[in-house]
Amino acid sequence: MRTIEWRDGVVTLIDQRLLPHKEVWRKYEDYQGVARAITEMQIRGAPAIGAAAAYGVALAALRSPAETSQSLLSDLEEAFRVLAATRPTAVNLFWALERMRRVANEAAGQGPGVMRAALVAEAQAIADEDVQVNRRMAEFGQELIADGMNLLTHCNAGALATVDIGTSLGVIRAAHEAGKRIHVYVDETRPFLQGARLTAWELMRWGVPLTLITDNMAGHFISRGQVDLILVGADRIAANGDTANKIGTYTLGVLAHENGVPFYVVAPTSTIDLSIASGAAIPIEERNPREVTHMYDVPIAPEGVPAANPAFDVTPHRYITGFVTEHGIVYPPYGPGLERVKRLARGARQSAGG
Amino acid sequence: MRTIEWRDGVVTLIDQRLLPHKEVWRKYEDYQGVARAITEMQIRGAPAIGAAAAYGVALAALRSPAETSQSLLSDLEEAFRVLAATRPTAVNLFWALERMRRVANEAAGQGPGVMRAALVAEAQAIADEDVQVNRRMAEFGQELIADGMNLLTHCNAGALATVDIGTSLGVIRAAHEAGKRIHVYVDETRPFLQGARLTAWELMRWGVPLTLITDNMAGHFISRGQVDLILVGADRIAANGDTANKIGTYTLGVLAHENGVPFYVVAPTSTIDLSIASGAAIPIEERNPREVTHMYDVPIAPEGVPAANPAFDVTPHRYITGFVTEHGIVYPPYGPGLERVKRLARGARQSAGG
Repeated sequence: MRTIEWRDGVVTLIDQRLLPHKEVWRKYEDYQGVARAITEMQIRGAPAIGAAAAYGVALAALRSPAETSQSLLSDLEEAFRVLAATRPTAVNLFWALERMRRVANEAAGQGPGVMRAALVAEAQAIADEDVQVNRRMAEFGQELIADGMNLLTHCNAGALATVDIGTSLGVIRAAHEAGKRIHVYVDETRPFLQGARLTAWELMRWGVPLTLITDNMAGHFISRGQVDLILVGADRIAANGDTANKIGTYTLGVLAHENGVPFYVVAPTSTIDLSIASGAAIPIEERNPREVTHMYDVPIAPEGVPAANPAFDVTPHRYITGFVTEHGIVYPPYGPGLERVKRLARGARQSAGG
Repeated sequence: MRTIEWRDGVVTLIDQRLLPHKEVWRKYEDYQGVARAITEMQIRGAPAIGAAAAYGVALAALRSPAETSQSLLSDLEEAFRVLAATRPTAVNLFWALERMRRVANEAAGQGPGVMRAALVAEAQAIADEDVQVNRRMAEFGQELIADGMNLLTHCNAGALATVDIGTSLGVIRAAHEAGKRIHVYVDETRPFLQGARLTAWELMRWGVPLTLITDNMAGHFISRGQVDLILVGADRIAANGDTANKIGTYTLGVLAHENGVPFYVVAPTSTIDLSIASGAAIPIEERNPREVTHMYDVPIAPEGVPAANPAFDVTPHRYITGFVTEHGIVYPPYGPGLERVKRLARGARQSAGG
């Protein structure tokens, strides 16, 4: 089962807002629907957003009535614009759109039919590669986990945040499947509760022992020596290793550092943005305060209370022990290390394509 | 308006579980009802729990049919036992019960009628003193707040956590009433949402500008230099300054320390427990996991998910900039400083009594 699938020109995805209470699959036949699904967080998680955006472009190409390459390219511009405007922080979105744009331009000489086929194939490739990449990260990452360890994770960086398998949760699952006895503290991850709703659901399905906690309990367990290793995903990694991830990750980084607990970021090289020197330049999405003041439409605060809702924060690289990527684990100094795995990823794609 | 009141042998308190949506006042005529109200968190906050327990003992004395001092003392034993078993962490509960026990013993020689009157008077004194003590802390504490400051607070240490005025929120209110332009970040404080429900409600009533945030957002704003001062309450302060307070406080202490933000604990001397050398010896209440897995009875996680619910954590004294007490602000080294204010409090009470 994949979080998002393409079949006969229709994109199907599981509505993550309704999990774990209801499993509802939604079908989209145009890019506008996919864009809305991303904005509303029916689908979320940096790698999954990348795949969804790519499929969105493929839908735009199929639905466009354009009869020339030029007019198809021009129709696609609107799709690129709308999809790029859905969420600002996760760089995988822009990375996937960039790949789709390059394919569109390269195929333009061969007419709109070839362009459409090439775009569908590229979207499929992005999705398929994500699964392979996660499998490789899981293999590298599970070496960090010893038998008997207590782990802690934040948000959902599982199968639901990717096309399949997951980033930090993929590592945890691989350790479990390798027979290591582990236990996972799961931060509930307010306001959207990705930990309580999604990560808990995934771990329970796999039979991994877990304890759900509120975000503000993590420090308590970390300070008491009850957490051996912290694993999180990422939405954008700057060239120096500063990492944007779900709000609350920065705090975990500080707590890990203060208590000497290893803190790893698990993310594919598509999450690394070498064009940004440091975390200060990463745009932080500000979402609707209603996600904070209401839960399932029930108010949990006085009516009219002002609220903030930054969806991400930036963890400075000095708090991060290492990055688990599909080309191995990167340790400090991060500048050259991140550049190296990014180069390896480009090389692997070129040799696969050639 | 007081959080808890005594009139003609009836204790009236506002049910804080229903705020801010409903203002329901509940009346109790026996100590069992008061004990249940404490356990269920109809009334919460260390100083308010102390006053409630004292009123509970007064109710037990009035309702007891005992006709001799000896049999009244023996009836009171059961009330002391039940009230002491309500919640383990806040020491004000035990401090108040100890005061009531001393009064009962001292008045025993004068018969059950005098005992009953003395116990009612002592409970009233405990409640009245709490208001005076909070007023003095507010005066001392508001000196720490400069015009234009952004403050951050956790849980509810306001009028609702005390008999009136509040500890850390009393300080904030005093600064506001002194004309200082301030703005307060309010942690929602999962799982019970005392920040979102109670602190937001109090600040809005007083007209103090605020922004509600989820607990995991505090680090984001602190790291960006958007918080000038953090003020929290306390449930128990050990002799070395280690402080038990609402779960999440430890994390704020670490974040404050890492970012050079002053971090003050505002608490009356009744919260200082010199019998305990360090925070390691403070019992941490573990509450029903349902408070984590459900919100307003709606499940927010998969059915059957294991969850933990430690209600407090311990902030080591090294993260604390100072303690605001009714006898002034205590700075490190905390051992002698806390002993000094505790001695001053005993002296003040003896001279008031004599």
